[in-house]
Parts: sequence; structure tokens; C-alpha cells
Amino acid sequence: MRMIGIGKEDPMGPIYVVGHKNPDADSICAAIACAEMLNELGYFAVAARAGELNAETTFALSTFGFEPPQPLVPSPDMAVYLVDHNEPVQMPDGVAQDQVVGVVDHHKLGGLKTSAPIYFRVEPLGSTCTVLARMFDEMKIDPSRQIAGVLLSGLISDTLLFRSPTCTPLDEQIAHRLAEHAGVELEHYGMEMLKKKSDIEGRSASELLNRDLKEFSFAGHRVAIGQVELMDFSQIEPNMDALLEEMRAMLGEGYELVVLMITHILSKKSRLYAVGTQNALSVFERAFEGRLESGYIERPVVSRKKEVVPPLERAFEED
Amino acid sequence: MRMIGIGKEDPMGPIYVVGHKNPDADSICAAIACAEMLNELGYFAVAARAGELNAETTFALSTFGFEPPQPLVPSPDMAVYLVDHNEPVQMPDGVAQDQVVGVVDHHKLGGLKTSAPIYFRVEPLGSTCTVLARMFDEMKIDPSRQIAGVLLSGLISDTLLFRSPTCTPLDEQIAHRLAEHAGVELEHYGMEMLKKKSDIEGRSASELLNRDLKEFSFAGHRVAIGQVELMDFSQIEPNMDALLEEMRAMLGEGYELVVLMITHILSKKSRLYAVGTQNALSVFERAFEGRLESGYIERPVVSRKKEVVPPLERAFEED
Repeated sequence: MRMIGIGKEDPMGPIYVVGHKNPDADSICAAIACAEMLNELGYFAVAARAGELNAETTFALSTFGFEPPQPLVPSPDMAVYLVDHNEPVQMPDGVAQDQVVGVVDHHKLGGLKTSAPIYFRVEPLGSTCTVLARMFDEMKIDPSRQIAGVLLSGLISDTLLFRSPTCTPLDEQIAHRLAEHAGVELEHYGMEMLKKKSDIEGRSASELLNRDLKEFSFAGHRVAIGQVELMDFSQIEPNMDALLEEMRAMLGEGYELVVLMITHILSKKSRLYAVGTQNALSVFERAFEGRLESGYIERPVVSRKKEVVPPLERAFEED
Repeated sequence: MRMIGIGKEDPMGPIYVVGHKNPDADSICAAIACAEMLNELGYFAVAARAGELNAETTFALSTFGFEPPQPLVPSPDMAVYLVDHNEPVQMPDGVAQDQVVGVVDHHKLGGLKTSAPIYFRVEPLGSTCTVLARMFDEMKIDPSRQIAGVLLSGLISDTLLFRSPTCTPLDEQIAHRLAEHAGVELEHYGMEMLKKKSDIEGRSASELLNRDLKEFSFAGHRVAIGQVELMDFSQIEPNMDALLEEMRAMLGEGYELVVLMITHILSKKSRLYAVGTQNALSVFERAFEGRLESGYIERPVVSRKKEVVPPLERAFEED
């Protein structure tokens, strides 16, 4: 375990700041902004990514003049700083818990263990970028116009431009401040991002399923939950058969349940498609108090973290 | 799980702010200051304790005019805010992980899990009170003279007035600021506290062993580590036989190893006494690269967290 003191330079090479696997805009934007913050504090930090960028993230980075972060190439003595996740199962492959020297996140606590104290900060806010914007503010570091832009992008993406129930008044307040600093019109830029998020044109079923898939362990059961966010349910209909086939193929890889949330951003509803073992499917139906019809249960939910994971985890624990 | 939003009042009764079992000065002082901070932020919070106060803590509280916090009486729907610990095994008995709504700490991560995001902040600093002093500052809440005094007391106690290797330049800097605010002369008040900490006059072996005993699970092995801090090793000699007898009695309660650090504050050394199973004792000897002689290994260490837990945990993992 590498110890990183506060305000000390580290002679052992860079700290790699990285989001979760299948990174979304919040993960990538947070990695870039957090590395910048650490550099301002006198550390040697580099942003990295644990997967390919989606179209929304590419759009955000190019808007503010950033190159995509380099892919993370894990090695055993590398210091890793996690953003936008803290669950050991969501960490990049090849990274051990004791290599983690810092965490900034907005998800539930997933049981990370270390052998020494590290910097660890989680807040129940709409995005990791919101937490980072607060930290810039607290440490009186003024982000550049470009960094304000990436922080804003992660915030918009994760809150669905304030439509998600994970969004708090503080997120909205900080978004307005960041937009002004970044020199963009909030509503206009936000809708551009949502359009990119929901653009699935030309994507294969495998790409769609995997680009925002997260793994969980609920009472020892291995569960994967993916999400595709759209402006209209009809966009996904031609892909549904192929998507369900991909999901069923995952059951052969040790998952007991694979859930795909098809989320209609503007009406704030999701169709929760599920495949799994007989027992897992009955846990799923209990969790969402409904019956799978045409492969899904439709519910007025948009947040995996706040509206899908907690009832599902509870149902597995009570099983 | 109770959700606590940022800046929202909670109508469901107070949040109980509580330190670890066998509370030390940092645990109690942090609970009082953190409850005060939450109240300033508009929550309804009450400081509580998970055990009896030691003499040092009683001295600090009476210096600044505070009554001891009330004992925590756990109930299943109570919201609990942890200070100075985050390991599930160190939490007050009767409190479940999902009742935890916030954490402020300076220890290693112990694997806490929740079903929803909470406020969780750990920093590698000398005391929980230092982290809280930073938070007061960041949120631009000016602590009262009395609260500055309790924050200073926790900081002095945990850093042994800056003698512990866990102490950082930031701890010292914040201590000077707090002492000025609290209206005490830092060195004089600090030595008064250390004298109280090392006063074992009239204490039974059971009291001495238990007043700062922490439980750990290292690679599945149940280990307890206690600490007694003194101005001179000769103070403890008359109690040692009775202490070792108490430690051996704990082996019947499921512990594989019981370690007692007898720490000489001024010369910054500890005698590490150990009783345990044959295997656990050989792990202990490997961890500290020595042989138990007269029941102990003497080492230039003072910090359980930074100098005793990590090598012991590593040795158990490699066993």
C-alpha cells in the first residue's frame, strides 16, 4: 500500500485517477477534473479510463477541448484514485483494493477495505462532478473554463439535466455556476448532451448492453444491471430481440440476473427487462411488485442507483 | 435505511452521532463537535457515547464546560452518524450498517456497506477532530470557543501532542489555530491532557485493558488490540500480571490474539504484549520481526492504526 500524505509530492510515479468499467460521462469527466485538482495540490496525477468512451462523453470532451484519457494499464505498484465508484467489483480489472489511495464518489458504500487510512469522500449528490466542484470550491482552487465545462458535463449526464431523483437543489445550483464559468447556455448545452446520450444509431446490441453495465453482489448473488437512456421507447424496439439474446448469454457467465433499464428520459419512466434463473426472476418481480410482461416491468423510475439497486438488493437479502 | 439529504431537516427524530466502543477523547470530542455542526446545518443531531468516558476525556469536557454525551440506546429505526470509526465490528452493539447516515473518520476503510449513498468522509490525518475542524472551515461555520476547545482536545489526545507518526503538518497548523480560538496555551494544555491520559492510579486491570480496546478481523481471524499510554513504563509494572490474566481470559471468548500496547509517550516506544493461539502468536512474531520475551516485543512505535494494525493484518493475510 502506497501512502499519500496531504500536500506531499509522491516520487513513485503518477497517481492514476480512474472511473468505473464501461465509463459514462460522469466517470470520465470526474477523472479529468480530479487529476487536475490533485495536480493543483502538488501531486503528480494522470486521468485514465477503464473502457471505451460513449458518444455523449466524446461530445463533451471535444466541446471543451480535451483528448480522451489514456486507457488504464494496471500494474501492481500503481497508485489508483477512484472516482464515481467505490464497489470493489466495479474497479478496473487488475487493480487491488490496497492500491487505492483516494476515492471521490456519490454511490452507496460497497465494502472497500484498505490497510491504512486514505482520502475517501462520498456525498449523496447527483454526480461525482458535483462533489468535485464542491472540493474545488472548498480548497479555493478556481477551475479553468474547460474544467468547469467537463464538471458541468458529468453533472448534466448523471442527473439527466435535473430529471433524476438523485438530483438535489445543490446540484442545480452548482450547475448554474459551472455553466456560467464554462461559458455555455445550460439548457441548450444540456439538451445537446441528452440527445447524444440517447443516440443509439448504428450501435450493436452488445455495445448497447455493455456500454453502461454495472455488476453487483446482492447477498452473494451476482447481478448485472445495464441502462440505455432514450428520448423515445420506439428507438430501441428494433434492437430488443438481439439485446435479450445478449442478456441471456451472460447467464452462462455466472450471472444469476441481468437487468436492462430502457429509460425514457423526458417522461421519466423505465422498462425494466430481466433475464435470469427462476429464483432470481421471482426476486426481481417481488422487488418491483409486478409481473414480467413482454419481458419487462414498466415503472416511473430513471435512477439505477436510487430506484433499482436498493429494492433489488433488499429483495435478495430477504429471499 | 433512512435517507438524509443535504440541507434538509429530518422529521424522524434525532441523528445520533457516536464514536467507537470504549471511546477515547477523539471519539467523544468528535461526536460533540459533529452534532453541533449538523445542528448548524439545520439537522436535528445529538451526541451519544458507546461506553464510559476515560479520565482524559472527562478533564477535556469539564475544561470547556460540556456534560458527557448520553449513552447510546440503539433502536432499529434510529439514524446513526459515525465518528472516529468506520469498521462494522467497532460500531456500537445493536446498530446495523444500514442505519448509518454519515461517517467522519481518519482510520483505514473497514468494509462498511450501505444500500444507498450516504455522506462518508475519511482523511489520513491525525485525528477525527482535525477532519471536523476542516469541515467547519469549509462550510464557513465558526465554532464557538467551547467547540474549538473540544476539537483541540481530540486532536491533542490522538496525536499525543504531535508525537504520533499519524500527525501531519496540517494537524499542527490546525491545533495552533484552535488553541488560539479556544483561549488556551497549547503546550501547557496539551501536557495537562497527556498527564490525565497516563494517569492509571487506582484502575483495575479490566478497566485498563478495556478502556481503549478495539476489535479487528484480519483475514477472518478475530483480534483485539488495546493500548495504555504512560509517561513511564514503571507505572504499569505492578498491574502487568493481572493484565495478562485478563487478556488470556479473552481467548475463551473467541479471540485468537489479544495484543496490549504499553506506550511510553515521551520516548515514543511501545511494549507489545501478546497472548493467543500458537499460530496467532507466530504470526504476531513475524509481523514485528522479533521474539516475545517476558511476554512482549519492544518497538519504536506509538500508533496502533499506522504502526501495529497494518503489519499485523499483512502477516495474517500472508499466513
